[in-house]
Amino acid sequence: MVKVEVLRIGHRIIRDVRVTTHCALVARAFGAEKIIVTGEEDKSIEKTVKNVASSWGGNFKIKFSSNLKKEVEKKKKEEFTIVHLTMYGEKLEKKIKELRGKKKICLVAGAEKVPAWIYSESDYNISVGTQPHSEIASLAITLHEIFGGKELTKKFSKAKIKIIPQKKGKKTENKKKKAD
Amino acid sequence: MVKVEVLRIGHRIIRDVRVTTHCALVARAFGAEKIIVTGEEDKSIEKTVKNVASSWGGNFKIKFSSNLKKEVEKKKKEEFTIVHLTMYGEKLEKKIKELRGKKKICLVAGAEKVPAWIYSESDYNISVGTQPHSEIASLAITLHEIFGGKELTKKFSKAKIKIIPQKKGKKTENKKKKAD
Repeated sequence: MVKVEVLRIGHRIIRDVRVTTHCALVARAFGAEKIIVTGEEDKSIEKTVKNVASSWGGNFKIKFSSNLKKEVEKKKKEEFTIVHLTMYGEKLEKKIKELRGKKKICLVAGAEKVPAWIYSESDYNISVGTQPHSEIASLAITLHEIFGGKELTKKFSKAKIKIIPQKKGKKTENKKKKAD
Repeated sequence: MVKVEVLRIGHRIIRDVRVTTHCALVARAFGAEKIIVTGEEDKSIEKTVKNVASSWGGNFKIKFSSNLKKEVEKKKKEEFTIVHLTMYGEKLEKKIKELRGKKKICLVAGAEKVPAWIYSESDYNISVGTQPHSEIASLAITLHEIFGGKELTKKFSKAKIKIIPQKKGKKTENKKKKAD
């Protein structure tokens, strides 16, 4: 199975807190292993995402970095295919088969301002539709298409909370902590 | 083709402005015809969404309402199937075939607090994965699955701007306004 990491770029404290948090939670829920957030370091997001990962399981990682260029170079050295999500790129539906054949993908989720070099340095510039909408939606759809829907039934190890799907209402299974 | 509208509930000014805007733009870009936002009326979102619709084409509508119950009752009278998106619901992948057979669907996208009656009044409670993530992602994936990916190539009438997909960089086609 392809290994996917997400690079969320240009984070701004306060203004982007919820959108970046949604990006991180989507990355985790849809099968990515890690999110690297560049821009302003934001401890509140790190805390939220770590709390979710601790309760809901799995090994998802979050990291902040102030140096976007360095992060892209690092991912290239680690042999990730760099896939920049942008509404100006080639259509996802035309490139999805190629992407499914990769071993490691780094999905770059843009912000308000994307430096021009990201377009040239990326192996792919990919659009999810050609309309303005949301980097959260682009990320979710791309992960959903890469993993072919299997991500929706992914098991998260060591989960303290699990949902038992219901027609009406809410039901969860809570694993009690062992006494020390 | 199934007619879809979106009901975004519990909007709060400032705090939810970007998430609700993303919901509205995703609704439009992924083939819904209208979004009804309940909660606090927010002219800034209405303006953003109308501006996008004016430049990028199509007939997408946005409406605010302070009365959620009335809006749900109205959709029921208009014979919409009410589909509440919640991580506690039945799995999307198990219900998608049924949903594709409906004529009219109203997708309810939740907020921080969802009144309990929404669960019982909805025809379906549907989860996109059973992990916490984002109502924007749930909305995008559900629309993508309902329309089977065809929404990504939807034509928007009277568009002033169109994107010409590129391997690298940005290219748009701008239709000039006719002189009076």
